[in-house]
Amino acid sequence: MRTDLCDRLGIEHPIFGFTPSEHVAAAVSRAGGLGVLGAVRYNDPADLAAALDWMDANTDGRPYGVDVVMPMKAPTEGSIGDLSALVPPAHRDFVEKTLHELGVPPLPAEENDQGVLGWLHSVARAHVEIALEHRPALIANALGSPPADVIGQAHDRGILVAALAGRVDHARRQVADGVDIVVAQGSEAGGHTGEVGTMVLVPEIVDAVGDQVPVLAAGGIGSGRQVTAALALGASGVWMGSTWLLTSEYAEGLPGQTAVSRALLNASSSDTVRARIYSGKMARLLKSKWTEAWAAPGAPDPLPMPLQNLLVGEAHRRISAADDPEVVAMPAGQIIGRFDTLRPVADVIADIVEEAEETRARLAK
Amino acid sequence: MRTDLCDRLGIEHPIFGFTPSEHVAAAVSRAGGLGVLGAVRYNDPADLAAALDWMDANTDGRPYGVDVVMPMKAPTEGSIGDLSALVPPAHRDFVEKTLHELGVPPLPAEENDQGVLGWLHSVARAHVEIALEHRPALIANALGSPPADVIGQAHDRGILVAALAGRVDHARRQVADGVDIVVAQGSEAGGHTGEVGTMVLVPEIVDAVGDQVPVLAAGGIGSGRQVTAALALGASGVWMGSTWLLTSEYAEGLPGQTAVSRALLNASSSDTVRARIYSGKMARLLKSKWTEAWAAPGAPDPLPMPLQNLLVGEAHRRISAADDPEVVAMPAGQIIGRFDTLRPVADVIADIVEEAEETRARLAK
Repeated sequence: MRTDLCDRLGIEHPIFGFTPSEHVAAAVSRAGGLGVLGAVRYNDPADLAAALDWMDANTDGRPYGVDVVMPMKAPTEGSIGDLSALVPPAHRDFVEKTLHELGVPPLPAEENDQGVLGWLHSVARAHVEIALEHRPALIANALGSPPADVIGQAHDRGILVAALAGRVDHARRQVADGVDIVVAQGSEAGGHTGEVGTMVLVPEIVDAVGDQVPVLAAGGIGSGRQVTAALALGASGVWMGSTWLLTSEYAEGLPGQTAVSRALLNASSSDTVRARIYSGKMARLLKSKWTEAWAAPGAPDPLPMPLQNLLVGEAHRRISAADDPEVVAMPAGQIIGRFDTLRPVADVIADIVEEAEETRARLAK
Repeated sequence: MRTDLCDRLGIEHPIFGFTPSEHVAAAVSRAGGLGVLGAVRYNDPADLAAALDWMDANTDGRPYGVDVVMPMKAPTEGSIGDLSALVPPAHRDFVEKTLHELGVPPLPAEENDQGVLGWLHSVARAHVEIALEHRPALIANALGSPPADVIGQAHDRGILVAALAGRVDHARRQVADGVDIVVAQGSEAGGHTGEVGTMVLVPEIVDAVGDQVPVLAAGGIGSGRQVTAALALGASGVWMGSTWLLTSEYAEGLPGQTAVSRALLNASSSDTVRARIYSGKMARLLKSKWTEAWAAPGAPDPLPMPLQNLLVGEAHRRISAADDPEVVAMPAGQIIGRFDTLRPVADVIADIVEEAEETRARLAK
């Protein structure tokens, strides 16, 4: 399953592992893939710097990437206080009432209520600056092309730039903007995702831009058969996210993940839903009493990004602290149905590589 | 791409072509696949008999299949008049008002207004009887396991029974019921479809029942790369439907398809939507002003099967007669974005076979 992209990035397997956990990201890189650390959860850029310092020291010199969340053009942005004033009181009331009904207690008074600030352009820019001070081989952007100067700075340092695309026209624009790798992310994927399934989207994007840049397949990839299918569709590799949620490194590496792990292990591929309730943009989430409450009659429409996350940021932390597997707020793709034990990242990758080789041999017969 | 299933059915390529057009079905069989004629549109079983007579005479002795739409257990069913009385007047008013706003004229007075009766269990049973009087190699059921006596009659005649499954538990039940082939149909597919994408669903169903029956992959399949991806996922073949809507035989073979062909050729993979407005069950349709009207604020909730089709049956015929590409009521999968010319079925299949061989060779390198 080795492709040209492996040589270009100095990796063994064309497996890109996107994860908010530096432990998972480092383990993916050590196992021969490219671990890509999601920066969005780091409100304080110094914490991202510490995580990347740790990755520099724990990846055996192997390459890794950083994923940021930034629109190409900076939106109008006020202080957190200014933005919070735009959240309608009825939305706040709905969140408070829902959490109460679901038995999610308030946080202790000393906890702050900042929400996740990585959705803010200024914070995402700080993430990029921190990343450039380390040695990533790749900077990826979940919202498409990053701003032109970010692409320029990355290229000046020999860093490749990847962007996620859910439609062919997005991919074309990204390549015109100078993006080096397009991640064709099908609707099966967790987190921000479009409507077109991986089976249809990947060859469409390969046909549109594959002669200019390598295309990675994302959405529904968690086994060697699926990796081989992605390569058959014309992808140069795979971008996997949800699979790592079911690894022992993930469960150990982040606080408050007991309930989430339990919920994910119990979930089938039918237990996700696309909704705008997490960030304001459409994202696939694990179904739970929290997602059901937002889908019930009388629930308000979600707010646009970044207001929705300001609205639900504290709720997410309260839900996390309550640690109830029936009430979780968690981006997750349909592939979560495949896993019913937590395994080390290295085992997951070894199994994928072995099954991909078996699949290739089977198809060759 | 030859699999064991080819030998079992006496076909050259494991390509199952589901279509409401006997011209397309016959062309698929003549090209080495298995054409499967959808029976649901034949209100008068005698018309289905005539179509199958024609196929017997125009398939060069090659095998073909018939697809019916029947629940495993017969629902309570009255006469059309009894059922029509259950349609709320407000729903009828909405349909009439919407058609008026969209510029769809009434039908001439002499046209009947029966709707599509194939959704009715009694009509589907008549379809099965007609099918058994011909020489199908396969009877497929869009709603899962057919009734036990239908499976028994098919098996007595050496006819294989296939069922469509959108979830693993459905596939398990079908195999327990005696179904011979499970069609794992991902969310990308046109018509009745579930939520799980093909990339995730196919290996799940293969792992659950693949040691007992062959599994076909459906949803988003229209090229040799996609067929190879399906085989990589563990499928024994592919079930394709929407691809044939863009063939010259389809456009020629059915009345009132000018507007539909034009709309399909212009559509991208993002131009479909899942809704219950066609039959009462969730189905993927081509986006049009008709689907948008049902999604607009104030539109009524669709009725359950079979009432919704009784409600919209005449509307479908009026829309068809109006022949406006912006107002169509047409099941279609995301793969329609791949095609921008109408081609003969034989060319489509030859291209798929050739690309699948190239893909296999590329993966083997």
